[in-house]
Amino acid sequence: MAPAAATATATDLPLPEQQAIWIRIRLADNRDVSIIHRLIHQMAVFERLTDLFSATESSLSTTLFPSPPLPPFRSFTVLILEISLSPIPEDESDLDFPPIVRQIALGSAVDDPEAEAFASPRGGGLVVAGFVLCFPNYSTFMARPGLYVEDLFVREAWRRLGMGRMMLSVVAREAARMGCGRVEWCVLDWNTNAIDFYEGMGAEVLQPWRICRLSGEALRSYAGNEDDRGGRI
Amino acid sequence: MAPAAATATATDLPLPEQQAIWIRIRLADNRDVSIIHRLIHQMAVFERLTDLFSATESSLSTTLFPSPPLPPFRSFTVLILEISLSPIPEDESDLDFPPIVRQIALGSAVDDPEAEAFASPRGGGLVVAGFVLCFPNYSTFMARPGLYVEDLFVREAWRRLGMGRMMLSVVAREAARMGCGRVEWCVLDWNTNAIDFYEGMGAEVLQPWRICRLSGEALRSYAGNEDDRGGRI
Repeated sequence: MAPAAATATATDLPLPEQQAIWIRIRLADNRDVSIIHRLIHQMAVFERLTDLFSATESSLSTTLFPSPPLPPFRSFTVLILEISLSPIPEDESDLDFPPIVRQIALGSAVDDPEAEAFASPRGGGLVVAGFVLCFPNYSTFMARPGLYVEDLFVREAWRRLGMGRMMLSVVAREAARMGCGRVEWCVLDWNTNAIDFYEGMGAEVLQPWRICRLSGEALRSYAGNEDDRGGRI
Repeated sequence: MAPAAATATATDLPLPEQQAIWIRIRLADNRDVSIIHRLIHQMAVFERLTDLFSATESSLSTTLFPSPPLPPFRSFTVLILEISLSPIPEDESDLDFPPIVRQIALGSAVDDPEAEAFASPRGGGLVVAGFVLCFPNYSTFMARPGLYVEDLFVREAWRRLGMGRMMLSVVAREAARMGCGRVEWCVLDWNTNAIDFYEGMGAEVLQPWRICRLSGEALRSYAGNEDDRGGRI
């Protein structure tokens, strides 16, 4: 599931004749499960991979939001991207990861036909526009953790406005501050727009490596039975 | 860092004229740091990537073996492969992951010139022959965790005896038993022996995906400064 690249750059300065909006990037929690589920489904539709989509709200809740919660970026971590047409009040209630708020200027107003369905569970008139999911990985050569970005998704109405870049930059910033050795993610080899975008952000594309995946029945065949702890070992 | 593939299959039956050995696969802990460090260095030499090798015993200890320890397979997890020429006593002291012991038969005795340097920190005449490092990853489409195998390494003397397969199978078994959706790792596209081996284990090689990596100065440029929490966001 490749992060979907936005291709324009946001600016912090509202210019005349432009539409100012406010963006918030914050930690997700269990209240966001329904919207995360719908965002993942939209991503599956976008990637034409709905046959692989089996997530439910319940399975997302169990796997992403254990109780008590784990510290952000130390386990599976979801950040939510929200949009507001008016200034967003400061909110430092999440001390582990205070929400990041930025004002940006758009060339014209954005029509979001899904705004009502994606109203933020936090209220305040905000609308959820996307999400990023990441978790720690590890480099043995560096003996340092890194962060792996499994998904980066922006709803259609809000694409090409620099929001994918903002979310990926937030992950990169946290990785840099945590002393991580690297941030990694995957991209489809034919998606030259995304590759150009990622290279523009400073990433290198590792050409010779391929991902191997063991799943489904092939994976289950290794379980063996409990008595002999055997399987195909 | 691709797991290095072993290409032969172990058998559980000692046959006449063959050399029986015993294999143990167990959880690593902080006592194994010195040997893990030397194994990673050997892997860097094997892959001709010593310029990327910056791990120290201290950085491995800090990042792999926090105190108190985390449950195996829920965070960075190292398994150690050990060899003995005599039967290995049962050891169920690690309740989270009781060591796995198997007897295998070799066509001829193995000469291991490094045996003394790689004597097991657990004693008992065992010799460390390799390791595997894995950690959880996540599939949003399945809403299920998986396991990612970052490294799989067997010292030269013990290659082509099915030991890589055994270690990878142990990871696959644990993944299957934990209800994981998949086990993943990387391979170099020109390493057709390894690809054939992995496909024989039931894995598929995902051809169109490429890994993107943000590291070094490019990553550090995202840190920004603490005052404005800014960086390149």
